[in-house]
Amino acid sequence: MYFASDNWAGAHQSIAQRLLEASAGFASAYGTSDLDKKVEARFCEVFEREVAVFFVATGTAANSLSLASVQRPGGVTFCHSEAHVIEDECGAPEFFSGSARLVAVPGESGKIDPARLSAKISSFPEDAVHHGRASAITITQATEIGTVYSLPEIGEISAIAKKRSLALHMDGARFANALVALGATPAEMTWKRGVDMLSFGGTKNGCWCAEAIVFFNPDRAKEMPFIRKRAAQLFSKSRFIAAQFDAYFKNDLWLDLARHANSMADGLRGGIGASNCARLAWPTASNEVFAVVTKSAARTAENRGATFYEWPVPAATPDLVEGNETLIRLVTSFATTKADVDGFLKCLAT
Amino acid sequence: MYFASDNWAGAHQSIAQRLLEASAGFASAYGTSDLDKKVEARFCEVFEREVAVFFVATGTAANSLSLASVQRPGGVTFCHSEAHVIEDECGAPEFFSGSARLVAVPGESGKIDPARLSAKISSFPEDAVHHGRASAITITQATEIGTVYSLPEIGEISAIAKKRSLALHMDGARFANALVALGATPAEMTWKRGVDMLSFGGTKNGCWCAEAIVFFNPDRAKEMPFIRKRAAQLFSKSRFIAAQFDAYFKNDLWLDLARHANSMADGLRGGIGASNCARLAWPTASNEVFAVVTKSAARTAENRGATFYEWPVPAATPDLVEGNETLIRLVTSFATTKADVDGFLKCLAT
Amino acid sequence: MYFASDNWAGAHQSIAQRLLEASAGFASAYGTSDLDKKVEARFCEVFEREVAVFFVATGTAANSLSLASVQRPGGVTFCHSEAHVIEDECGAPEFFSGSARLVAVPGESGKIDPARLSAKISSFPEDAVHHGRASAITITQATEIGTVYSLPEIGEISAIAKKRSLALHMDGARFANALVALGATPAEMTWKRGVDMLSFGGTKNGCWCAEAIVFFNPDRAKEMPFIRKRAAQLFSKSRFIAAQFDAYFKNDLWLDLARHANSMADGLRGGIGASNCARLAWPTASNEVFAVVTKSAARTAENRGATFYEWPVPAATPDLVEGNETLIRLVTSFATTKADVDGFLKCLAT
Amino acid sequence: MYFASDNWAGAHQSIAQRLLEASAGFASAYGTSDLDKKVEARFCEVFEREVAVFFVATGTAANSLSLASVQRPGGVTFCHSEAHVIEDECGAPEFFSGSARLVAVPGESGKIDPARLSAKISSFPEDAVHHGRASAITITQATEIGTVYSLPEIGEISAIAKKRSLALHMDGARFANALVALGATPAEMTWKRGVDMLSFGGTKNGCWCAEAIVFFNPDRAKEMPFIRKRAAQLFSKSRFIAAQFDAYFKNDLWLDLARHANSMADGLRGGIGASNCARLAWPTASNEVFAVVTKSAARTAENRGATFYEWPVPAATPDLVEGNETLIRLVTSFATTKADVDGFLKCLAT
Repeated sequence: MYFASDNWAGAHQSIAQRLLEASAGFASAYGTSDLDKKVEARFCEVFEREVAVFFVATGTAANSLSLASVQRPGGVTFCHSEAHVIEDECGAPEFFSGSARLVAVPGESGKIDPARLSAKISSFPEDAVHHGRASAITITQATEIGTVYSLPEIGEISAIAKKRSLALHMDGARFANALVALGATPAEMTWKRGVDMLSFGGTKNGCWCAEAIVFFNPDRAKEMPFIRKRAAQLFSKSRFIAAQFDAYFKNDLWLDLARHANSMADGLRGGIGASNCARLAWPTASNEVFAVVTKSAARTAENRGATFYEWPVPAATPDLVEGNETLIRLVTSFATTKADVDGFLKCLAT
Repeated sequence: MYFASDNWAGAHQSIAQRLLEASAGFASAYGTSDLDKKVEARFCEVFEREVAVFFVATGTAANSLSLASVQRPGGVTFCHSEAHVIEDECGAPEFFSGSARLVAVPGESGKIDPARLSAKISSFPEDAVHHGRASAITITQATEIGTVYSLPEIGEISAIAKKRSLALHMDGARFANALVALGATPAEMTWKRGVDMLSFGGTKNGCWCAEAIVFFNPDRAKEMPFIRKRAAQLFSKSRFIAAQFDAYFKNDLWLDLARHANSMADGLRGGIGASNCARLAWPTASNEVFAVVTKSAARTAENRGATFYEWPVPAATPDLVEGNETLIRLVTSFATTKADVDGFLKCLAT
Repeated sequence: MYFASDNWAGAHQSIAQRLLEASAGFASAYGTSDLDKKVEARFCEVFEREVAVFFVATGTAANSLSLASVQRPGGVTFCHSEAHVIEDECGAPEFFSGSARLVAVPGESGKIDPARLSAKISSFPEDAVHHGRASAITITQATEIGTVYSLPEIGEISAIAKKRSLALHMDGARFANALVALGATPAEMTWKRGVDMLSFGGTKNGCWCAEAIVFFNPDRAKEMPFIRKRAAQLFSKSRFIAAQFDAYFKNDLWLDLARHANSMADGLRGGIGASNCARLAWPTASNEVFAVVTKSAARTAENRGATFYEWPVPAATPDLVEGNETLIRLVTSFATTKADVDGFLKCLAT
Repeated sequence: MYFASDNWAGAHQSIAQRLLEASAGFASAYGTSDLDKKVEARFCEVFEREVAVFFVATGTAANSLSLASVQRPGGVTFCHSEAHVIEDECGAPEFFSGSARLVAVPGESGKIDPARLSAKISSFPEDAVHHGRASAITITQATEIGTVYSLPEIGEISAIAKKRSLALHMDGARFANALVALGATPAEMTWKRGVDMLSFGGTKNGCWCAEAIVFFNPDRAKEMPFIRKRAAQLFSKSRFIAAQFDAYFKNDLWLDLARHANSMADGLRGGIGASNCARLAWPTASNEVFAVVTKSAARTAENRGATFYEWPVPAATPDLVEGNETLIRLVTSFATTKADVDGFLKCLAT
């Protein structure tokens, strides 16, 4: 009953097996091998257009280098107040971009509020040398709290970005989970809605270590080879990433894995909704579930071997949790089983 | 006949197999799993003392973050003129250390000349605010041109470092190859000779992606967790690195792989020494061989499928190569076969 | 009727005259001259203890380098939401500190709210590598909106800082104005209340360009000579700063100038309080006055030659201003005359 | 007999007096005042074209920010081995440009050797992600050792720059001294010979503190307002710089001051050439003179109150100085008198 995080799972067997196969033989290094090229072409197919792809080691790297590539001196990036970039990356986005600032924009359901975004941006007039200047917006899909931007919602953020010529980045650490939740195509959820750059995450969805930066306009990626190398993120045996993505995309494995994880989360959502000693903290649509449970039920679950994180109560809803309750986060993955879900839900039934 | 680089090989079967095994099951993330802990303990055994270990994605990261951890404003690191840090890392060492400068020190055989090092260091007097200030020395073992520092040579550099309280770093991208060449223990080649920090490379010696920073005094590693995370080098599924090192150290596999690579290089050295249309450019002791070959022999080898890099003639020895000759670099690895070596040598026999 | 900013004034005659005198003769460069030494000693007298003093070119430099000197990888500095460092310095504080983040803490009257500060700090637990880590607090005295921290209020912030071993910095761009408003000594308003570092501003109070970083514990200033030089802030003819401070401190000129500026602001405050078409937006104690005035009165004043800035209505008090009104900022300086004040107040009488 | 450096002098009376005059009255801040505008226009006249001008606090700032404005990730700037940027700025040029590396190119007489420059540049092929990439060249005029590039020599460096589209920067800390030595116009010595950016120094030639970055193509200066502000180099009372330049340019005062300094150096050169116990170390053309003098003569001069620096013997000419001799540097300035020169020369006559 491992619900602590989707990065507690290992690697899916098809992916691990593919890596084993790729381990034999020789290939040119630093992303120039045939397998690297093949996978890059596969990315173009997946996104239905020519894209520029850069493998990196971590999601933090994907976010930070994407944002670094569009920064200017005194630049500012707008993100949601609870975004991974501002909460969980130890200042890496600022570090890689010559100290460009992250400006937090609040919004319900873990999503940037468009009106507050516009207001915030307009507090940075063009050429206002003291304040710094608006450079980019980053949104997280699926969000840190399990919700998903609808396609029109992405379009709305994008329209704001375009009005001020800001680059729009999507943190897709859980891209696949959002994609299958929406039933959209990769193209529809990104460049067709105005996204310029994507952190495409495979690690949380069944890979060992497979993260890619995707530029939808390859012309804007010209600095990236140097930004990546200077960031110590260019793998010599790059095909060990390529091999993982090769299996990941094969027969749409990635979508199957995300559907499985979401479906396991559906199971949790259903059971929690029906429980007497638990309730959903807020609706989610991906592989994360936030629940208010009685402390005794939480202890029972832990005693039976469940792992999960207690979560801080959001400042905006201080009354969400009563004295004998606690807020917990449950994350499912490709490796979650129905037995795990059922076992957990049984803990809530006592 | 792949002699282009040791990073053109894939992963050794024992390592790839271990990774496959590790792919099942759940484990806590970010380096906190049991397997991570086990491998850290293994590092302590290998080095015969308590060490602090940090996995990172690339050798460039290992070098850059090691050096960043000992930098001060205006700091300067001394390296050999042909060191990887100054020649092949796109400015990453400077980038991660707040722009600390690399100062090149020449020396024969790819090794820093101690007298010239001392002279260079003394051009940076303490408290000379305009010049910057000496902070660290980095040596490469084995060197970029295939040679190996003897233990006394390391001690000599170390003595210079201690005199000015400079940190001493070793770039061990080919650590194992140097180790077996010297017949030394890991402890003897590092902290017993005054090395403070090591970039311990596994990738070039049979891993997919396994690099570690080793601090021989764990007290000096206190900033490193933050430096690493801010550098986007903290893996979530860190055990995919741990699993590789687990197999790497098991039954001294790493030493066997390095011995094999060095022995294949010995084969090349012997054959080239005996050839009429080739000669060794300089003596080497590890898995790199530099040879002056006739252009026609080089073309023959390429036509028969050999891969290798032509190498720039060192500025210090402009007469090394005659008009009808070229300087080439040949690198062997765990995956090099005797058939490859023999096949290549046959090209020199025509 | 120049009320736009205290940096629209030139230099006080005594200071300008002292600079003229100092222009003759030779003196050693880079802060080593007798005059530099004399002024450094004067700083020690003014603050009643041994201090380390570093002249820099701008207030932004003083703030940024002070904060840079106490930063660590992943470090975070807490400041008020409207602080100059976060609003008006184009990211310089982050740039000079290797991208350490500024975290805004709200609070009434332009002052950090201690309870919210404590809460914010505790969201950065020690050793939480993902979040970054608390490193410093900076307060502005007088604040950006004209208010002044009382001595106990400074002590309260300081106690919070000490509890977590955070460095406490004071942005004293208007240090003298706050000092005379409180009737305190320089020592009482700084190190006796736990302040570690001070940006001591002379420019806004009658100098041409005279800013100094003051460390109350000189042992903590050991990196600063290198930080300052690397930041291109070490003046060769440093005595041109020293000469200004020499006159500034002589016969307590600096306190007289600040008293004059504050007294001119008192005149404005009195007149505005008594006006029919204006009122004070909030109470202030230094040389800044914020007033809600009718738009017609504002136009009248402008037409008669008054300069001032219209100010954004604070988000916390959206109802401060009615439709026919506007919020303006008035800043007085050593150069403001009673005639200017009276002239301006007359515009409000129509 | 102050020959230690031209920055040991104070400010010329006309400049100091102009500053005194400017101290009265009010003016808008941050470089927007009428006087700022007037001086910017004066720069356009001086350089016979539209230029963009940015005042900064130090020569190090002028150099560092100029170079930062043309840097790219992994970028490399070529400079002479003894250039101020690489010898005396504590890493500031790298710090402000996101760690772009300085690559030293040797050359006789303190000037970059064009052939060696070309060779060095070609070791950085386009798109070679590991090496970094050529971005800029910087030359110093007059050089650190008192020599001056002829106009054709500047043109030759410039042609190399253009071939690879590298920006060409001139460090003009002693611009005026070089200009009058060549008898050239400002335009001829800069943009007409392909210089893109200039650090225009006034401090060493009679100002207190007056340094400007000049862009000959204002379109390339668009990032500079933000780069300067983020670097904490935007003065609030900017007119205190403007006033100095106003006097500096008036009636060609700047050229007169430089002519005087050079002429005093001529006096030294003549006397040293004729001396029995001294000789010129190498020919110089500006206000710096390098002399080999007997140790006893040097001591005599010091005892009589002369100040100067002993200089390290260049590595390329180890035999320059005999056992009983020492190499010294003598720098003249606007404030040097004929009596000082004669007094010094008398010390050599004993």
